[in-house]
Amino acid sequence: MKNIDISYTDSMQAEEAFYQAFRAHDIELMKQVWQNTDDVFCIHPGSSRIYSFDLIIASWAHIFAVKEEINIQVSEVGYQQDTRTAIHTVKELLRVDNRDLGVVYATNIYHQTEQHGWKMVGHHGTPALTESESRISNSLH
Amino acid sequence: MKNIDISYTDSMQAEEAFYQAFRAHDIELMKQVWQNTDDVFCIHPGSSRIYSFDLIIASWAHIFAVKEEINIQVSEVGYQQDTRTAIHTVKELLRVDNRDLGVVYATNIYHQTEQHGWKMVGHHGTPALTESESRISNSLH
Repeated sequence: MKNIDISYTDSMQAEEAFYQAFRAHDIELMKQVWQNTDDVFCIHPGSSRIYSFDLIIASWAHIFAVKEEINIQVSEVGYQQDTRTAIHTVKELLRVDNRDLGVVYATNIYHQTEQHGWKMVGHHGTPALTESESRISNSLH
Repeated sequence: MKNIDISYTDSMQAEEAFYQAFRAHDIELMKQVWQNTDDVFCIHPGSSRIYSFDLIIASWAHIFAVKEEINIQVSEVGYQQDTRTAIHTVKELLRVDNRDLGVVYATNIYHQTEQHGWKMVGHHGTPALTESESRISNSLH
């Protein structure tokens, strides 16, 4: 493939690309979204925290390989913005074949890099559990 | 009670106070930790996202009222820092009476305010589920 290098001019563009890559299972686009450093982190719903560009991309490649493509509706986005950091909190509604799969709350963190525009530096996804499921985790907090 | 106003000089101090308040069920200290605005957010493990200082403090007051005090060991902290924003990702080991209750991955976000030092502006806690429990959420990502 071509060795493209996409620079996003703000965190909104980077987030749009993130969900585009996620929806289409486009691992090359997902590579463009993330900052290529060791200190970026990703927590998939119900999973442990992963560090580093390489391991995070590997985790998405695995997800894209074993899961069917899903429709993701993003809504209720909240924003916090610093000079070079943007934090978006997002409600993701996941659907397959018009069937609701569930809701995920995600905290997406972007950083304005020196040379490559805005890149994702953190993604933390949480399943919003149903009442019965949440009994498991309600014992935690 | 006294109307104290604590200013934390960095995000580490604010985080220490957060876990101190959490461990001791100290709602007055928890009020000091959070930025008192409407745009702060909190996602308790398995719950929906809550916005605003008032609702977040109410949620902690509820947790403190209905749950027993727990021991929280914080480890494996990762840091990202911008001018006035700090993002900590934390592994919380929760224990009661020497019994492991579970592991939570938390993303804690702090902001350096104009007048009140560093305050928490976001907390996102995820239960790290056991293998059987994670089947529920593995269908999401």
